[in-house]
Amino acid sequence: MPDSFLMKRLVQFAETDMAGVLHFANYYRYMEEVEHAFWRSEGFSVMYSEGESQISWPRVATSCEYLSPARFEDEIELSLTVARVGNRSVSFEIEFRRQQERFALGKTTAVCCGMKEGRFEPISIPAHLRTVLETHRQASAKA
Amino acid sequence: MPDSFLMKRLVQFAETDMAGVLHFANYYRYMEEVEHAFWRSEGFSVMYSEGESQISWPRVATSCEYLSPARFEDEIELSLTVARVGNRSVSFEIEFRRQQERFALGKTTAVCCGMKEGRFEPISIPAHLRTVLETHRQASAKA
Amino acid sequence: MPDSFLMKRLVQFAETDMAGVLHFANYYRYMEEVEHAFWRSEGFSVMYSEGESQISWPRVATSCEYLSPARFEDEIELSLTVARVGNRSVSFEIEFRRQQERFALGKTTAVCCGMKEGRFEPISIPAHLRTVLETHRQASAKA
Amino acid sequence: MPDSFLMKRLVQFAETDMAGVLHFANYYRYMEEVEHAFWRSEGFSVMYSEGESQISWPRVATSCEYLSPARFEDEIELSLTVARVGNRSVSFEIEFRRQQERFALGKTTAVCCGMKEGRFEPISIPAHLRTVLETHRQASAKA
Repeated sequence: MPDSFLMKRLVQFAETDMAGVLHFANYYRYMEEVEHAFWRSEGFSVMYSEGESQISWPRVATSCEYLSPARFEDEIELSLTVARVGNRSVSFEIEFRRQQERFALGKTTAVCCGMKEGRFEPISIPAHLRTVLETHRQASAKA
Repeated sequence: MPDSFLMKRLVQFAETDMAGVLHFANYYRYMEEVEHAFWRSEGFSVMYSEGESQISWPRVATSCEYLSPARFEDEIELSLTVARVGNRSVSFEIEFRRQQERFALGKTTAVCCGMKEGRFEPISIPAHLRTVLETHRQASAKA
Repeated sequence: MPDSFLMKRLVQFAETDMAGVLHFANYYRYMEEVEHAFWRSEGFSVMYSEGESQISWPRVATSCEYLSPARFEDEIELSLTVARVGNRSVSFEIEFRRQQERFALGKTTAVCCGMKEGRFEPISIPAHLRTVLETHRQASAKA
Repeated sequence: MPDSFLMKRLVQFAETDMAGVLHFANYYRYMEEVEHAFWRSEGFSVMYSEGESQISWPRVATSCEYLSPARFEDEIELSLTVARVGNRSVSFEIEFRRQQERFALGKTTAVCCGMKEGRFEPISIPAHLRTVLETHRQASAKA
């Protein structure tokens, strides 16, 4: 098992701003994309139905440090690790790399929720999803 | 002088996601909008030319805590305070309120840069911009 | 009754791209904003419930002509007119102006739909919404 | 030579709206992405320097017809064809397909411009770029 989940991404024109760089808010969209790709790689969707209820993961906290700018058509590698697994929440760290060099570091904490009539209700992370998260967390911790 | 800078904002349809709420990355666009409105209210643009060089404020760190979701057509009030003024950097706090109640809290730290040939070079905050920031910071601290 | 519905808008930083101008896809978000503001000005939301079903207006066609670019902090006026009202569909024209001068022209056609279990089903435009649209269309035609 | 340029794309969560579908304005970002991927596949960037001047392709007209909605995690195929090559402009058609079925059709016309001091000036399409476009146009016409 690899210690982190990797995804390639190309900076798109519409994601840049008039300063000529990847707009700082778009880093959060990249973080979400790699998180969702991670769930897919494990056979789940981030919006996934279990029986009658739909499980979703709204964010409760996100952050990003920016070390150097990214530009149009930069080839970026996103590296996701599971930093912490709580009873109801999970924290991911996402490293942004370009040519092996880190240029940003993002963190995101999401809470496992059942969705009922458009409302989010926190629930304990279902066992099979917890297993996926714990396995990745332990692999990261060892690495 | 008020202790914080206020801006109203309506949640737009395109800013929601399939979970029916304001997408978490768009909070960062709101933070930027109020920051820029703050500079305008003081007579400056965030992309402002001083002599031959252009001054810009790239972010070095941003974060947001989400307490409850926002929805389409919610009337939001953004309250910006100057939290810290360094030699080259400034930190803002942005409170998201709906009907007087906080539903999110953002933070952003930006570095004052001169732009030359598309590159950012950190510089000391020019005196007249520093005066604006310091005045707001002290007003917030007293409040 | 005015012959068109007007809305002011300021070009935001995050809406620009590395060419230094308002990104061409964002014109469509502006069109949507003025369309929704129009509905609000008439006392309706674009996502509005009638009895048990929710009415929505998915687009079937959109277009835009770009005459000259818009830039950060440009003060824009959007002028919406009702161009055509069909049995189930409505077409809007949105003129983009800056200092009284047109710099873009958008068109959008939407179909009135009832939403059931996440699916859109075209329906005849309800009478009271049709009245709003027809009144505006006739005012525009006379102007 | 294939008669069209193809690109795969997955609908991302942040690109959906509260109606549960790919927001209509984001189709235009997809169109841009495939256009840029096309240029890259021919060895050019859409923002490409020739001698001292930078060549760019601002849009003068765009449009899209929407036949059925796209949803989160839909696997989309974008098929770009060169519809027309003028002296200074080029028109592309972009078909959106899902499981071989067309669900949207976009068109975009861009003008070849030299960028000088942040201003766009239309120029004749340089010969080597014209060759690329003409070759694709003729292949599409034959297909």
